[in-house]
Amino acid sequence: MRLYAYYRSSTSYRVRIALNIKGLHYDIVPVDLRTGEQRGAAFRAINPFGGVPVLEVDGRRYMQSMAIIDWLEERYPDPPLLPPGPEERYHARELALGIATELHAPLNLRVQHYLKNELGQNQAAIDRWYRHWLAQTLGPVEQRLAALGAGDFLFDTPGLFETVLIPQLYNARRFACDLDPWPRMRRIEAACLALPVFAMAHPDRQPDSPQEAMP
Amino acid sequence: MRLYAYYRSSTSYRVRIALNIKGLHYDIVPVDLRTGEQRGAAFRAINPFGGVPVLEVDGRRYMQSMAIIDWLEERYPDPPLLPPGPEERYHARELALGIATELHAPLNLRVQHYLKNELGQNQAAIDRWYRHWLAQTLGPVEQRLAALGAGDFLFDTPGLFETVLIPQLYNARRFACDLDPWPRMRRIEAACLALPVFAMAHPDRQPDSPQEAMP
Repeated sequence: MRLYAYYRSSTSYRVRIALNIKGLHYDIVPVDLRTGEQRGAAFRAINPFGGVPVLEVDGRRYMQSMAIIDWLEERYPDPPLLPPGPEERYHARELALGIATELHAPLNLRVQHYLKNELGQNQAAIDRWYRHWLAQTLGPVEQRLAALGAGDFLFDTPGLFETVLIPQLYNARRFACDLDPWPRMRRIEAACLALPVFAMAHPDRQPDSPQEAMP
Repeated sequence: MRLYAYYRSSTSYRVRIALNIKGLHYDIVPVDLRTGEQRGAAFRAINPFGGVPVLEVDGRRYMQSMAIIDWLEERYPDPPLLPPGPEERYHARELALGIATELHAPLNLRVQHYLKNELGQNQAAIDRWYRHWLAQTLGPVEQRLAALGAGDFLFDTPGLFETVLIPQLYNARRFACDLDPWPRMRRIEAACLALPVFAMAHPDRQPDSPQEAMP
């Protein structure tokens, strides 16, 4: 398996976590989103849509992160990313898809560029935008975790929800969001990052990361 | 079953289609997003996150549209929304989740309000924003449909992909997007809207619609 990824892309990060939980081996091929490599002809030949991550398996290419995770879950069911009961599966998906649908687009680099170039917004306004949407989505997630009685993880073991949450908390820290109001998410983050499957997927541990140490 | 919905909300529309394909009976409870009813105390008691749709079944409430559709697919497997083969399932999800994650947030009323109130954008700028992101996402979907050889539907019968696509094409028409470059999507739209399960889910057929006729 080969994963075309950018170290700081949250969708790349989530697929790395899912692959690690499944115990699958993959080689990382870095794609530099800062220089626009994803829009160049060489990368368009791999993914015509010009985005990461792209997972390559047996000559086939998969390029939508949540659909990749569903595909992995069906193709490599053990260990599972979803609990067995339909109600628990719903709750894990509600939170994971809530984060994926509410946050992916507004926090995307493409959208940040549009805000800057088309709408003339400065970096301070873009940072406020970023923190606003993170808080709008993660605030309700915290409430939901309280209602569901989450501890170190949403359920017994980390799965789909944690796979999607951890990269967004990384984003939140990067953009200096205040995480104090979210103790349940911070607890889950600490429990996950203590596990090798999460730690190895961290942006700072990727070949294209300018950093060398763990955070 | 009871569905709290707003006639023009694309996430409400997609859940109506999924329920109709499954042949499930449900009562619509309109929630007026224009007047902010979803943020009022009465509705917050139903959905603390203040959004539609909310599906109520046997006293339980489900409130994330893509997770609701997954739940319906597991709970009421016939007729299926996804094809049986893992590669076809991936393709249906790639397109459906691509649309859901790329388009839900930027087209959301909340985001439009932020653009207007926080970033001082006028309606013309908001309309350009809307059309920009629709085209950015639906353009690649059209290419993908060509590559997959889609006809009236992505596969033999309409399912997850069409459930998510049709409400976005309705949005595209509302915001005067040029649909001419997308003949495959227009063909799928025509084939779907000719089916009662889609026609009955259309915004113009909802109890809170100000219109009375089909488009």
